[in-house]
Amino acid sequence: MIRAAVFGAAGYIGGELLRLLLGHPEVELTAAVSSRFPGKRLDSVHPNLRSATDLTFTAPERAEDCDVVFLATPHRSTMDLVRHWADRTDLLVDLSGDFRLRDTEVYERYYGVPHEAPELLDRFVPGIPELHRDRLRTARLISVPGCMANAAILALHPLAARQLALSPVLLDGRTGSSGSGASAGDSNLHAERSGALRVFAPATHRHEAEVAQHTGLDARMTATGVEAVRGVQVVCHTEVPDGVEERAVRAAYRESYADEPFVRLVAHKRGTYRYPEPKILLGSNYCDIGHVWDDASRRLVVVAALDNLVKGGAGNAVQCLNVRMDWPESYGLSFPGLHPV
Amino acid sequence: MIRAAVFGAAGYIGGELLRLLLGHPEVELTAAVSSRFPGKRLDSVHPNLRSATDLTFTAPERAEDCDVVFLATPHRSTMDLVRHWADRTDLLVDLSGDFRLRDTEVYERYYGVPHEAPELLDRFVPGIPELHRDRLRTARLISVPGCMANAAILALHPLAARQLALSPVLLDGRTGSSGSGASAGDSNLHAERSGALRVFAPATHRHEAEVAQHTGLDARMTATGVEAVRGVQVVCHTEVPDGVEERAVRAAYRESYADEPFVRLVAHKRGTYRYPEPKILLGSNYCDIGHVWDDASRRLVVVAALDNLVKGGAGNAVQCLNVRMDWPESYGLSFPGLHPV
Amino acid sequence: MIRAAVFGAAGYIGGELLRLLLGHPEVELTAAVSSRFPGKRLDSVHPNLRSATDLTFTAPERAEDCDVVFLATPHRSTMDLVRHWADRTDLLVDLSGDFRLRDTEVYERYYGVPHEAPELLDRFVPGIPELHRDRLRTARLISVPGCMANAAILALHPLAARQLALSPVLLDGRTGSSGSGASAGDSNLHAERSGALRVFAPATHRHEAEVAQHTGLDARMTATGVEAVRGVQVVCHTEVPDGVEERAVRAAYRESYADEPFVRLVAHKRGTYRYPEPKILLGSNYCDIGHVWDDASRRLVVVAALDNLVKGGAGNAVQCLNVRMDWPESYGLSFPGLHPV
Amino acid sequence: MIRAAVFGAAGYIGGELLRLLLGHPEVELTAAVSSRFPGKRLDSVHPNLRSATDLTFTAPERAEDCDVVFLATPHRSTMDLVRHWADRTDLLVDLSGDFRLRDTEVYERYYGVPHEAPELLDRFVPGIPELHRDRLRTARLISVPGCMANAAILALHPLAARQLALSPVLLDGRTGSSGSGASAGDSNLHAERSGALRVFAPATHRHEAEVAQHTGLDARMTATGVEAVRGVQVVCHTEVPDGVEERAVRAAYRESYADEPFVRLVAHKRGTYRYPEPKILLGSNYCDIGHVWDDASRRLVVVAALDNLVKGGAGNAVQCLNVRMDWPESYGLSFPGLHPV
Repeated sequence: MIRAAVFGAAGYIGGELLRLLLGHPEVELTAAVSSRFPGKRLDSVHPNLRSATDLTFTAPERAEDCDVVFLATPHRSTMDLVRHWADRTDLLVDLSGDFRLRDTEVYERYYGVPHEAPELLDRFVPGIPELHRDRLRTARLISVPGCMANAAILALHPLAARQLALSPVLLDGRTGSSGSGASAGDSNLHAERSGALRVFAPATHRHEAEVAQHTGLDARMTATGVEAVRGVQVVCHTEVPDGVEERAVRAAYRESYADEPFVRLVAHKRGTYRYPEPKILLGSNYCDIGHVWDDASRRLVVVAALDNLVKGGAGNAVQCLNVRMDWPESYGLSFPGLHPV
Repeated sequence: MIRAAVFGAAGYIGGELLRLLLGHPEVELTAAVSSRFPGKRLDSVHPNLRSATDLTFTAPERAEDCDVVFLATPHRSTMDLVRHWADRTDLLVDLSGDFRLRDTEVYERYYGVPHEAPELLDRFVPGIPELHRDRLRTARLISVPGCMANAAILALHPLAARQLALSPVLLDGRTGSSGSGASAGDSNLHAERSGALRVFAPATHRHEAEVAQHTGLDARMTATGVEAVRGVQVVCHTEVPDGVEERAVRAAYRESYADEPFVRLVAHKRGTYRYPEPKILLGSNYCDIGHVWDDASRRLVVVAALDNLVKGGAGNAVQCLNVRMDWPESYGLSFPGLHPV
Repeated sequence: MIRAAVFGAAGYIGGELLRLLLGHPEVELTAAVSSRFPGKRLDSVHPNLRSATDLTFTAPERAEDCDVVFLATPHRSTMDLVRHWADRTDLLVDLSGDFRLRDTEVYERYYGVPHEAPELLDRFVPGIPELHRDRLRTARLISVPGCMANAAILALHPLAARQLALSPVLLDGRTGSSGSGASAGDSNLHAERSGALRVFAPATHRHEAEVAQHTGLDARMTATGVEAVRGVQVVCHTEVPDGVEERAVRAAYRESYADEPFVRLVAHKRGTYRYPEPKILLGSNYCDIGHVWDDASRRLVVVAALDNLVKGGAGNAVQCLNVRMDWPESYGLSFPGLHPV
Repeated sequence: MIRAAVFGAAGYIGGELLRLLLGHPEVELTAAVSSRFPGKRLDSVHPNLRSATDLTFTAPERAEDCDVVFLATPHRSTMDLVRHWADRTDLLVDLSGDFRLRDTEVYERYYGVPHEAPELLDRFVPGIPELHRDRLRTARLISVPGCMANAAILALHPLAARQLALSPVLLDGRTGSSGSGASAGDSNLHAERSGALRVFAPATHRHEAEVAQHTGLDARMTATGVEAVRGVQVVCHTEVPDGVEERAVRAAYRESYADEPFVRLVAHKRGTYRYPEPKILLGSNYCDIGHVWDDASRRLVVVAALDNLVKGGAGNAVQCLNVRMDWPESYGLSFPGLHPV
């Protein structure tokens, strides 16, 4: 058993980490850190943990050393935490946006603030087991990608790595309300957000920078908040280079993901669930990916879906931990999702 | 044309008043008062009013005299406004809870604060056209009932007035999230409130006091927040006195409501919409009522539904205005609701 | 008063026509035709019409002559009805897909069946007042566009007419469940369809053919069913030709729509409802349109939203009727939509 | 490992059994029986099982002997299956309504058809571990209660067993759409069922008969379909006998459920999730129960919530299996539910 601490434990990603770690056979949750609710029971904020734990939230200044630290804290404030913990723990997994982008100029452009810990950037390994499994086995610092970014990277990387996609790639990201976090403002009140098709990022979104970094493609993302609490779906539009045929695309996905435990290829001619659908992924660590080849326009449409709090965050982080510790990757991540739901 | 001002115009009930008054053939909206957004366009808060008006919100201290004042302000703070306006305007319609209960002790018990303008209570006429149409014709001060209260009062008054129902009456109120208002807190974030069945008032709710006052019945209300933005439904459970037969109940409803423009009797043996269903009432001023007689247990179940912001608030207030001004009662209230929706 | 008949009156578009025509000051609804429910009351299928009408459905063979006929019937079967009625009525408004595409080959490609009344195609005027108001004034046969098509055409026509957009244009259409009609199958059961992000047309959709026809652009549509009953939103992605500047785009929209009663330009820097949002359009005849200029990529993102049953169908048809009869265009269409909802 | 077959495997309860049994450490799923989809892959109907199994549905006539048979088939047709399998398998768990009521007259009254296998009734043990754990250890035939019945029985049994509740008890049951099954008709289309507050059983519902049988109380249930796919909540209203004090009620619940693995007592003075809320129970086997004592009226309000497909069906059946086989009761049932969701 290793000892794990979660910072930002009262947030939505943090709460999902608590759920997954409490159900993990090799992890003991030793601290759930929250500056807002120190001393309060975890289940007073995350009622799904009732009877799963009697733990209370720990104030940040009381967090003690442990084997692995997860940071589910807001960007910017995370930099200080990383500085503090980087050499005090065997493994640090950061789920904020602060160490996802290797280029500090890109970071500044997308986050609007300067990067204050550039010296640490090189030490981070991207938390994408499908792309960086080997590096993750020895990583000390891991930076987990953004939810829509992860979906799009997994959708596009097999194509990009084989020159099967042309820039620019248009990404149409749709996201549930939990992506706005547990401290979202008035515009996330139920009466305003319910039933919404809120185009909150019409022409550009932070997550496109991660996609560009990991695929080399010029990616442009439109993001829309849809009626859902959990769930992300990204529809990618790209043209294919001359000479490329569909079977090369199919082979690319098969080669990339046939042995991946948490990526499924989903594209059916008929049925109700023909393409990746986030709702059946609630609580699961799967990223479903399906592509459609449009012969007339030599265009590919690739659809990817995941639960933003799991494969788009906490679950992906736990999968990275499993890789790092050489445990079965599905430890703590075996919930398959529900139907109907 | 008369000139009308709305206080609390940035709230949900206030916004609905704006919509209805802007579409009213005899009313000119002269002020939409908001302490939070003075100078901002109405449609920056209520986007459904785009192209309907170029008005901006008025600061409270700048509100000028007019013919009718609507108060859609929080309880307690409303008392001062009533004091100020009671004799400065021809007609004041209060939509807060402050002047609904005639008995200040009952008010204190249910609202937890003392009543500070008891001298005004007698001057108010209840804003329930179905019960007090004649008094409304000459009213100067009108107090519109609470949303769930209005549904329950309209459901039970025909029975109570004819001794067809026995105390206690159990009221099961279900309400959408707009009832919590435009400044609801974190527990009304979409991610928390979505899909909820939140029993927020398990054994007692303020609105039961209004029901008791208007029907003479001992009413006990359980209230649950359900997944909806608008809409209220109240299911009333009562036993009938010995000797009463169902046709007396049916006659009671028919006599009471056959000529009412905004009450419909809805109880069908088959079909998808057999009993009152709030969703088809969105935006409309109807209160639908249906009863079921259970012979075995000599029990009546009465279901009532309405849009909490219309017949449960702003629409009812406009109907009162129409009665008071001797205009057709449907002025500004002709929208019938949608199907499907 | 003119006499109007609606075919397909038990469907969702048909029901919406009933609602609008019953509220129209110059129209008498004389027949609501349904082969499925002859003799049944309209409000047994459309419960929002309770107390608005006592009419019953008319069997198709009993439909009598009248001044205007609306066809809200399935494609293909509509051709026979048009043949029958084309010369028996002053005005026929077809809301099916049968006479939207002028080119029978395109029709066959998108609908998978041959067109059986090509001789009638030339007589139809497109039911798009914003583009064809003059021709509509004297039209005898009108064909109303598809819901997502109408949104996209209104979004793109101002650009296309001024060479401000380049092909191909990617259209991302999102639609509520009412678009599948009142006879949708098992995959539209609530338990399956609820909370869905169902990519049902990943690379191509019928409505793109209408967009191409009316704009001259090569349009490619991806369509997704989202959690909503009503509402369509189309996000259009296009690059702009060299030399074009944003103010030309802004001018194009202003010139096109400044005087249009049912098109609003919506694009704000801040606020909860910055871009067109279908939910606040429920029941209204507005099409909201907003554009974003991305300087870096010389790309335009245009967002359009409407209620698929109103401006995307029945409301648009009534607006065409109003134009044709030289009545105020807003007759029967004054409902502004709700907030919150 | 024991071999298990599921009949009715294409339905919603059946599909949930598949999910739970595929994740059960001691069970091998040998047949998923469906008359509608023989030969088709399980995951073509239940997409959440993708990558969990390659099994296909078995035609009923091809089902072979196995150790345990689960029947998730429609009532009435289940009687024949029980007759066939009762002596061919070590354990039969029936999830239909056919063997829940011991009294054939009561069955006829509530189901409208005569009972055709009364000779088998005595052999069934009720599938309620909390009440009948000892009998379940040696059971051959188990009948799992209805979803709303189970919630109400668990809510009321502690009171009834100690004479702490008086008849009649009013039960207000609220249920999601999955309770109508995978073959529900037009009234369950998304466009009709979405956002509904559908009072489909205003004065009486089948499940009240099970409550009466297990508690001895005169129970009357009103049932409403609410906007949710999964989830049941029952609010129970009862008066308490003279002399009873609240601490007796509290003690009753504590004594009954302190050691129960799947019943949690939930009643808090503050917080967002004060009383049992079905949405945080999605996929979990918990039944949450909370009571409120109203001193003024000497009335108890007890709220119970569960996932109708899990603790209200398939999960409860698996828990019964675990009891019968003397395995840990949580085998296959460890998913705790999600927050937010």
